Amino acid sequence: MTRRVPASTARRLSHYLRSLEDLESEGGETVSSEELAERGQTTAAQVRKDLSHFGSFGKRGLGYRVDELREQLRQILGVDRVWRVALIGAGRIGSALFEYPAFESRGYECVAIVDSDPKKVGTRWGGLTIRPPEELESLIAGLGVELVILAVPAQAAQDIATRAVNAGVKGILNFAPIRLKVVAAVAVEDVNLVMQLEALSFSITQLGSEA
Amino acid sequence: MTRRVPASTARRLSHYLRSLEDLESEGGETVSSEELAERGQTTAAQVRKDLSHFGSFGKRGLGYRVDELREQLRQILGVDRVWRVALIGAGRIGSALFEYPAFESRGYECVAIVDSDPKKVGTRWGGLTIRPPEELESLIAGLGVELVILAVPAQAAQDIATRAVNAGVKGILNFAPIRLKVVAAVAVEDVNLVMQLEALSFSITQLGSEA
Repeated sequence: MTRRVPASTARRLSHYLRSLEDLESEGGETVSSEELAERGQTTAAQVRKDLSHFGSFGKRGLGYRVDELREQLRQILGVDRVWRVALIGAGRIGSALFEYPAFESRGYECVAIVDSDPKKVGTRWGGLTIRPPEELESLIAGLGVELVILAVPAQAAQDIATRAVNAGVKGILNFAPIRLKVVAAVAVEDVNLVMQLEALSFSITQLGSEA
Repeated sequence: MTRRVPASTARRLSHYLRSLEDLESEGGETVSSEELAERGQTTAAQVRKDLSHFGSFGKRGLGYRVDELREQLRQILGVDRVWRVALIGAGRIGSALFEYPAFESRGYECVAIVDSDPKKVGTRWGGLTIRPPEELESLIAGLGVELVILAVPAQAAQDIATRAVNAGVKGILNFAPIRLKVVAAVAVEDVNLVMQLEALSFSITQLGSEA
């Protein structure tokens, strides 16, 4: 049984955090549920509900203190610390990700890269040397890797995921177009761009049929 | 006001379609709500509810005919036709996407590539020549582009999106880390990998605090 991340709640919290960071850079000191709702394209009731899960925030009539709520959201989202990440699969997707500056600035530090291509193993990306798949378990355990970005072909993904989980990984950002089976204590986020395109064509098709 | 795609429904329908394709390749002729639910990691009641929105499917006690339901889901998801897609931004993300074989096999045909880098404009990717941003509107209108994959820096994304929509685009797969503002008739799907990592760290953090 795989536990999926409660994606909608997590995304709204991420949006609130971004809004608070924007507000702070604009010099804002307090913010209302209504303003957070507008920036996050949701309702003030939803904002209050989302935040109430994690304790009591803000004061009736006064709103939230921007710096306090930002710090609390960073703790709730687990981004007030550094996460050690391994990139598994040094193909095109992997290389695009590796150079994505937002990862590191958000506290996701890539500490290992693994690829099965003997021509890639031993070459360097940034300060890291690409390692072979046989070293997966020792890298994860030795470096304290908690998250892996899985950017390998579909047929290899389940085996690699199982090995990574057995070695101690707690979360997987999965680019392979399969539903991974992992134990319930491991979080999985699927990146499936074909499904996102299908969501677009679905939406356009349904809108057309309503018109 | 931006209308967001009802992502959870669309994703479940995409999963059902994949399950039906798998079943068909395994020689299955009928399938129950329970079996679709298990493959899609949801409940039989959810399967029946999702499908009931689009008409009456299946027979009580007999389940669904695999080939019929697959075809109906293809129509519902709008993947029984070819969608003409433009890739805007020929950077690393763009190049990873461009070579992703699943796009074309699912009916998403890339007919134009646009980039603002003068060194890239005029070079060829596959059978296509990279065009400059000044030609965006004429390419979209002239080639009948309905979907764009927006893989440009955040500061350029809103302007490009507005121009694409004004030229006739109906859907945007957005890789820029901003909330695009578009008219309600245009569908937007955001690909935000940092938010997906945050969903993982959120999930792991909350799980840890429950333990």
